[in-house]
Amino acid sequence: MYQELKRECYEANMQLPKLDLVVYTFGNVSAVDRANGVFAIKPSGVPYEELKVDDIVIVDFDSKVVEGKMRPSSDTKTHAFLYKHWETIGGICHTHSTYAVAWAQAIKDIPNFGTTHADHLTADIPCAPPTADQLIEGDYEHNTGQQILDCFAEKKLSPQEVEMILVGSHGPFAWGKDASKAVYNSKVLEEVAKMAYLTLQINPNAARLKDALVKKHYERKHGKDAYYGQGC
Amino acid sequence: MYQELKRECYEANMQLPKLDLVVYTFGNVSAVDRANGVFAIKPSGVPYEELKVDDIVIVDFDSKVVEGKMRPSSDTKTHAFLYKHWETIGGICHTHSTYAVAWAQAIKDIPNFGTTHADHLTADIPCAPPTADQLIEGDYEHNTGQQILDCFAEKKLSPQEVEMILVGSHGPFAWGKDASKAVYNSKVLEEVAKMAYLTLQINPNAARLKDALVKKHYERKHGKDAYYGQGC
Amino acid sequence: MYQELKRECYEANMQLPKLDLVVYTFGNVSAVDRANGVFAIKPSGVPYEELKVDDIVIVDFDSKVVEGKMRPSSDTKTHAFLYKHWETIGGICHTHSTYAVAWAQAIKDIPNFGTTHADHLTADIPCAPPTADQLIEGDYEHNTGQQILDCFAEKKLSPQEVEMILVGSHGPFAWGKDASKAVYNSKVLEEVAKMAYLTLQINPNAARLKDALVKKHYERKHGKDAYYGQGC
Amino acid sequence: MYQELKRECYEANMQLPKLDLVVYTFGNVSAVDRANGVFAIKPSGVPYEELKVDDIVIVDFDSKVVEGKMRPSSDTKTHAFLYKHWETIGGICHTHSTYAVAWAQAIKDIPNFGTTHADHLTADIPCAPPTADQLIEGDYEHNTGQQILDCFAEKKLSPQEVEMILVGSHGPFAWGKDASKAVYNSKVLEEVAKMAYLTLQINPNAARLKDALVKKHYERKHGKDAYYGQGC
Repeated sequence: MYQELKRECYEANMQLPKLDLVVYTFGNVSAVDRANGVFAIKPSGVPYEELKVDDIVIVDFDSKVVEGKMRPSSDTKTHAFLYKHWETIGGICHTHSTYAVAWAQAIKDIPNFGTTHADHLTADIPCAPPTADQLIEGDYEHNTGQQILDCFAEKKLSPQEVEMILVGSHGPFAWGKDASKAVYNSKVLEEVAKMAYLTLQINPNAARLKDALVKKHYERKHGKDAYYGQGC
Repeated sequence: MYQELKRECYEANMQLPKLDLVVYTFGNVSAVDRANGVFAIKPSGVPYEELKVDDIVIVDFDSKVVEGKMRPSSDTKTHAFLYKHWETIGGICHTHSTYAVAWAQAIKDIPNFGTTHADHLTADIPCAPPTADQLIEGDYEHNTGQQILDCFAEKKLSPQEVEMILVGSHGPFAWGKDASKAVYNSKVLEEVAKMAYLTLQINPNAARLKDALVKKHYERKHGKDAYYGQGC
Repeated sequence: MYQELKRECYEANMQLPKLDLVVYTFGNVSAVDRANGVFAIKPSGVPYEELKVDDIVIVDFDSKVVEGKMRPSSDTKTHAFLYKHWETIGGICHTHSTYAVAWAQAIKDIPNFGTTHADHLTADIPCAPPTADQLIEGDYEHNTGQQILDCFAEKKLSPQEVEMILVGSHGPFAWGKDASKAVYNSKVLEEVAKMAYLTLQINPNAARLKDALVKKHYERKHGKDAYYGQGC
Repeated sequence: MYQELKRECYEANMQLPKLDLVVYTFGNVSAVDRANGVFAIKPSGVPYEELKVDDIVIVDFDSKVVEGKMRPSSDTKTHAFLYKHWETIGGICHTHSTYAVAWAQAIKDIPNFGTTHADHLTADIPCAPPTADQLIEGDYEHNTGQQILDCFAEKKLSPQEVEMILVGSHGPFAWGKDASKAVYNSKVLEEVAKMAYLTLQINPNAARLKDALVKKHYERKHGKDAYYGQGC
């Protein structure tokens, strides 16, 4: 029944090793089917080179398995939480990509230093503080979702505009209209994280991109008069 | 009619992912046909793995589409401006390659630290200041071309000798006698940007290459008595 | 007689170049057969691209060759020492992977900065001090094993929980239930070493991961109620 | 007549792009035939992907072409000088590999920080000062050879033990018993240069490897009682 959804999820997951975003099993992608209230997600701990379409697990928004023989990703509850609260997103990708993790471990937002960043979002890439101890000891993966939501609320960010976040001491989550776009955003985040790191090494006093350029680059790709791409 | 021009442009574009100069669609190459007053350029937002020769767009020096069904690169007006004002150049390449972007975001010229640099140009690689706000809000991509020209005028540089620039807060542009040479210069710039970054990490007081070596290395490749290469 | 053991050892060794953990012959993996009191190890100085299953050497725990025509790895006595004293380990891997060597040369433990680290061990990755001069001039490779044991004793670490170490001024050793797991741990160590390096570059005051997260991430993969993976 | 020599030279050159030691034409390898007083060297400016065995040029120790239709490498006189003065070496390799060039541009010796370095040489990797101006304006490539010899004389180094050098502001030269060993040494130099760079980033006060370890690691590979490798 969910064959197409599983295939979308499988193909997005298989992009991760090709894009150098994961080693071994350090990542997972999911794809949602909102009409049926379920999403497809990578099974836990299965190496990408062994992953098959039929290994993909279908779960509902309470993380209960609906179809599939394998145990879903240990991060399933974080995905479920985000799908439940952010109704516009269609795919989520979590990795431990190197430069994004380094910023997360440094517990620092990634400053918007240039047009590569502004082509994708106007804000700094937020780094949520590490989850409070009692929430870690409670329903940890569910609470990681809450942590992401709280960070967006506090910084007044919208998940439609900012499609990525760092969870402090942990690593990046990204999302988008579908699973493939979530993977795309994960790659953009890793690349922007590397550029920002190098920028500060070359010039520790590097300034944030000025407002006129932030606006211009974001608008030409995402504004109502966008002229980037083929308009489809 | 422009089949050969399209192929030159296509093949130069396809070099970018092979040389690790782009991820996704973060770059574009063009090739000029001066006899006909047109140039060929990558269509906007098309991934390299899907790009076909027939997708290449032919535009004139006012950026009007002459042939092709797709929308040309969003940076087309910058290319057109440079072709119009610099009559000796035959190809232009723009990327968001990692180390070149880091220097652009740091808003710093890349110092000429060694013979790898001096084999290609004697000057530091210039970083143009970010475009003024009113020019960003105006005809932005056209004005980016103006920004490049102004920087060359101010620094008294010639586009025949210096075939590359960083646009501050944005990234690199390179050019050359044809599209293939423009891509070559983009790769050289990225490599020299990485070497200069590492040099300063090892020795923050590293000195510019001394004049005798700058001259020797540039002249043996580009001077009237050049003896590098096969002389053809 | 030891064909299966040789194959396990061979295949684990051949993972090293694929995982970018070695250049040339800078590494070696062994696999133990405790029932017969022997282990299989890479022959010394043989390039990976020429290595064949039958080149693998079988030695006993006193490093005497039991089967095989080639000279075993020059590090054989270190492997033998560790197998003799740590009865739970089934495979050992030694490399000169770049970032792990850099920390070893800096003679610094790798701090536990994030969940990627805590998914694998709770402690900092220990760096044993360089071996004392009289032990270097004595039975050096045997004494390197002793150095590793002494470091674990001093830091009160268990080889079941901490499956990796840096030997100061030298490089990493890792182990596990079999040779394949030892290689896995070597790759994890290299990746964690790179992340920790970058973390300190971005934030020289980066703090160790807090206890609640250390415990949560380690336990969800390795605790008695672990829920990562497929439980097999 | 020199078919075998050309093939040795060709194959050694073709290793450079595979080992990530060159981009485009930024490198050259030669192989000597001492019985005939000639050496084979890469033609100048020919891309590796187009290079053929028959393109290799045979020159004598005065850099005169003996066989071949193409112009030899612009660095030919440096090779000739070293073959003439160092009678034990059989191959020379020059590259612009990234980390070695960074140290050369920083005009710093690479300190012997660990056993990876000491497995190959006991000394720091020397960085010759940039050539004096009047020697650059004279017979530059010949004088670069002189510069290398002078540096070895001043530091009391032997080309049998130390098979690599950095030429300040320029880049690395390496040599060995044959062309293949010269390429091997170039790769080792690049890897050791990267490790030393990272070591100093992690610990700016990192100390040189202590004498007992320098001696032990060098001797076990190169001493009269060497026990590394298969003894052939």
